[in-house]
Amino acid sequence: MADKFMSMKNLIFTLFSRGGKYRSLTPDYLNDHTPKSIDMVFKAAFDLGKNVLYPMFEEMDRHPPEFIDGKIHVHEGVRPMLEILGKDGWISATFPEEWEGENMPTSLLLCINFIFATANYSASVYAGLTMGAAKLLLNFGSVGLQNTCLPPMLAGKWQGTMALTEPEAGTSLGDLCTEAIPFKDGQYKILGEKIFISAGDHDGVDNVVHLMLARIKGAPVGVRGISLFAVPKFRLDAQGEFMDNDVVVTQVFHKLGYRGAPITGICLGEKNNCIGYLVGKEHRGLSHMFQMMNNARLEVGVGATAIATAAYHAALDYTKVRCQGRKVIAAKESSPIPIIGHPDVRRMLLFQRAVSEGALALILQCGMYEDIFAKDPSQTDCHLLLELLTPVAKAYPSEMGILSTSTAVQCFGGYGYCEDFPVEQYFRDMRIHAIHEGTTGIQAMDLLGRKLVMENGRALILLKQEMEATMELAQKHGGLTQMVQDLSGAVVSLEKTIHALGAVAMEKGSDAYLADASLFLEMFGILIIAWQWLIMAEAALVELDKEGLKKRDILFYKGKLHVARYFFSYELPKMEGLARTLENSAQMTLTMPEACFTD
Amino acid sequence: MADKFMSMKNLIFTLFSRGGKYRSLTPDYLNDHTPKSIDMVFKAAFDLGKNVLYPMFEEMDRHPPEFIDGKIHVHEGVRPMLEILGKDGWISATFPEEWEGENMPTSLLLCINFIFATANYSASVYAGLTMGAAKLLLNFGSVGLQNTCLPPMLAGKWQGTMALTEPEAGTSLGDLCTEAIPFKDGQYKILGEKIFISAGDHDGVDNVVHLMLARIKGAPVGVRGISLFAVPKFRLDAQGEFMDNDVVVTQVFHKLGYRGAPITGICLGEKNNCIGYLVGKEHRGLSHMFQMMNNARLEVGVGATAIATAAYHAALDYTKVRCQGRKVIAAKESSPIPIIGHPDVRRMLLFQRAVSEGALALILQCGMYEDIFAKDPSQTDCHLLLELLTPVAKAYPSEMGILSTSTAVQCFGGYGYCEDFPVEQYFRDMRIHAIHEGTTGIQAMDLLGRKLVMENGRALILLKQEMEATMELAQKHGGLTQMVQDLSGAVVSLEKTIHALGAVAMEKGSDAYLADASLFLEMFGILIIAWQWLIMAEAALVELDKEGLKKRDILFYKGKLHVARYFFSYELPKMEGLARTLENSAQMTLTMPEACFTD
Repeated sequence: MADKFMSMKNLIFTLFSRGGKYRSLTPDYLNDHTPKSIDMVFKAAFDLGKNVLYPMFEEMDRHPPEFIDGKIHVHEGVRPMLEILGKDGWISATFPEEWEGENMPTSLLLCINFIFATANYSASVYAGLTMGAAKLLLNFGSVGLQNTCLPPMLAGKWQGTMALTEPEAGTSLGDLCTEAIPFKDGQYKILGEKIFISAGDHDGVDNVVHLMLARIKGAPVGVRGISLFAVPKFRLDAQGEFMDNDVVVTQVFHKLGYRGAPITGICLGEKNNCIGYLVGKEHRGLSHMFQMMNNARLEVGVGATAIATAAYHAALDYTKVRCQGRKVIAAKESSPIPIIGHPDVRRMLLFQRAVSEGALALILQCGMYEDIFAKDPSQTDCHLLLELLTPVAKAYPSEMGILSTSTAVQCFGGYGYCEDFPVEQYFRDMRIHAIHEGTTGIQAMDLLGRKLVMENGRALILLKQEMEATMELAQKHGGLTQMVQDLSGAVVSLEKTIHALGAVAMEKGSDAYLADASLFLEMFGILIIAWQWLIMAEAALVELDKEGLKKRDILFYKGKLHVARYFFSYELPKMEGLARTLENSAQMTLTMPEACFTD
Repeated sequence: MADKFMSMKNLIFTLFSRGGKYRSLTPDYLNDHTPKSIDMVFKAAFDLGKNVLYPMFEEMDRHPPEFIDGKIHVHEGVRPMLEILGKDGWISATFPEEWEGENMPTSLLLCINFIFATANYSASVYAGLTMGAAKLLLNFGSVGLQNTCLPPMLAGKWQGTMALTEPEAGTSLGDLCTEAIPFKDGQYKILGEKIFISAGDHDGVDNVVHLMLARIKGAPVGVRGISLFAVPKFRLDAQGEFMDNDVVVTQVFHKLGYRGAPITGICLGEKNNCIGYLVGKEHRGLSHMFQMMNNARLEVGVGATAIATAAYHAALDYTKVRCQGRKVIAAKESSPIPIIGHPDVRRMLLFQRAVSEGALALILQCGMYEDIFAKDPSQTDCHLLLELLTPVAKAYPSEMGILSTSTAVQCFGGYGYCEDFPVEQYFRDMRIHAIHEGTTGIQAMDLLGRKLVMENGRALILLKQEMEATMELAQKHGGLTQMVQDLSGAVVSLEKTIHALGAVAMEKGSDAYLADASLFLEMFGILIIAWQWLIMAEAALVELDKEGLKKRDILFYKGKLHVARYFFSYELPKMEGLARTLENSAQMTLTMPEACFTD
């Protein structure tokens, strides 16, 4: 296995080269973190990734969680890993000082999670889930709940989860039927069944706290009758001792990949003795949960981007040492060359870089908007931009990551298909991301059906302004004229498509408007990533203009420019076909009668 | 698991609706086989698939071949399966009568292999490989070799293999270094190592005959110094008894998918006691092997198409029964609907059909050209068309099959990622096809560098004539006018791209001409499959004009028409972006300096 699974240089460059007008308006969105302190934090995260997470990467896949006698056993490295992550303050990093946190901005958290996930995605989710659940308790939980749960959660001793899905309610949460019957003082008896709970139970922690959606008896049907509860595996008795809370593990799922993390089914209240603690307000559970969900979606983007990045580095490493074939015009007697010398192999490497580095840039762009808004709640435009870009930041890396890791496999030829190299695992691990935390289809409906139309389409206007700020800056460099022109043309093309879809909505209704939402998401995603590449190309040129650069830096920035041009030449043109399909408004997906799907 | 893994109706329709002018010129290319006799043969194959191969589909994956004490143990069902395939004449079907074969045309063999591979791809390769190896012996082997090897091979008692790859020579066969030292009477001592040999050894047969490439001592370097040998695991002594032939199994590869078939490494002549028998002429091994290779490539297309087909049927089955969500405009109180009712799910089903049924049509189109040429060797144009289309028939199903099976996974949501349903296995099984028998990159070089330019580009002229014949026929139906126009425009667009690439070749040389061959292959493939869909749409309309159709038939033909329109609306436009990229002639894949691939 290659032991280089990410580029720190690229991560730092990407973090500091965010674009758009907000970047220059609020240069201090990273709070008091200086490049130097950030460097130290990232290096510490990298060391942890390299020394603790990465060595278990393959092992955790080969020995997935086992369900024995009602208990789930995970890799023996999980417990010490969580202890370190707790002790060293990684789980509490974004928390306020009163919880011994550091108020770390989201941008930096995203980078750290990226580092961990490049080292070992499955291992990285345990703490990430606890962090998310703890955040919900911090924002909506009672003081009592906070005092009981947060310290052990932030110390890595208790696991937090998000328990949403039920056997008959995955995508359509409104149909969930886990029931909560009022008991006393904000306590409810819980009765129901949940499935697909990530890290839903395991022996690497002492307790598990499920942040769970359920319906209070008598609540309205649909999404407006759902409340949020904290449901621990063990609750505490009057003496503060663990007492069984009637949460029974029913299964652990056997999966294609992402095998290091136990995805479980649980049954609640079989003995009528499962207590849940209301979090936030009655019937407002979904809106509370969505606070976390948006972040969870961004984190899915991080995971997908990280896996694609690690796969790229494995492929790069291999193509530099594997000799096979000769240049087309070489003499037959010459020796075989490293396969990175073949244009088709370089195309495969460029594609992987274009996808994974472009996705990382978008995620950190989202992080910036979130941080600006968190620092100054009057910056609602940044929040709107974040809302608009979140479905793309979730779906683009998840969908393109399938192709990107598949391309990494291809770089290895037959060996890529074998367990001897890590790429087949990356290919398997990747595939979950287009599914969990809202499938790509759901992201597409969210983008086209909600985000694009909210506040009369203001988010898109803001986005255009952001792109224009980037183009204005890029315009100053002669070398970027073509890219500016192409991006500007792509924006016009997008607007034309949106206009055509608007006409469909007027004429044929919302069903027809949304029929090909997935294609629109794909088209929109390409444009967004092109914008990100222009941001990076401009930043690279600024750096190249500086004096006294090291040779390695020059190569890095020139490489960046080259990949940017690759994206504009090889990926951006894909918008054309998508625009054509969306505008011909045939809506074949709507009109094919179900009965024709027979033979 | 769904027990419907293919549509017989669709297979028969596709076989009998092949297009182009050769179809009408030579209506009898299927020899004496009538629709009725074909129906019987296919039904028998389907029963075998359903009762013998399909029940082992999951098991063979969960319990892959094991390498214990130098021997490879495969699933216990392999031996009885091969015995049935031998006894019932499936392995010898295409052989002449003197070998108890039936002279079955290639088109029908492709259909039968398709049926078997939809039931269980891994199980289907054993006999397929034996058949291919036996064909090489039939065409080039000595009478003695034929008499010794063919009867047990065709009876399913001996396994045949293709042993080409070596640790340092996969794609670049010219570098192989297995050595053959002349011994006596066409016998050679073999010394070397081979890897990635499909079914290279196992306990489901009594003996294995490797059709192996090796270099006779003193032969010229490169591909012109390679000869073909038959190297058995056991050779026969004077009494006809088995004697060890010094072929040692070194490993079985652990793979992402395709786990039911043992892919092995073997070591030859460690004790200097490995005898190989020359097959064909000295130094002509590669050209002999390529006779089989072209067919093997077509068979890879069959395998990929079959897996995509089976995955589609599993997905279709699921989406009809899984209820989740409501129509966009439905009342909230209504019940959840089967997910096939959602446009995005239908898009995913349409995409899978467009790919898998389009690919099947292309494969059978190739089968037709091969059969016409086999029947009448003066029909060299058909051979040329077959040569031109083979890289597409191999690469299109293999590449698009990755997306198609991935889409099948997506139809299942979270369940698709779990081992409870077969789609995750289809997704894994599929991934080998873009690699084995020549990677997609190799197919692309073959298409653009060889097939397009051979005989002064005559193959393309023939192809255009074939497409024109289809368009002329389609033109007669009012309903197909738009598709004819679109296909005609796509042909013009392809010619424009080829022209631009020609200019690049003149100006910058062959390196630049071939730099983006993979993109050209992708573009060309879309056009070819569009042509196939127009053929099918026309055939469906002809059928719909007939009187007295059953309701089920009407739905089938209407469905066909709908999927054809889907392909033209959703897939064909992708040519535009590819054309743009190929014509801007940036050749970014050639110009990115290797040193820039650093961080």
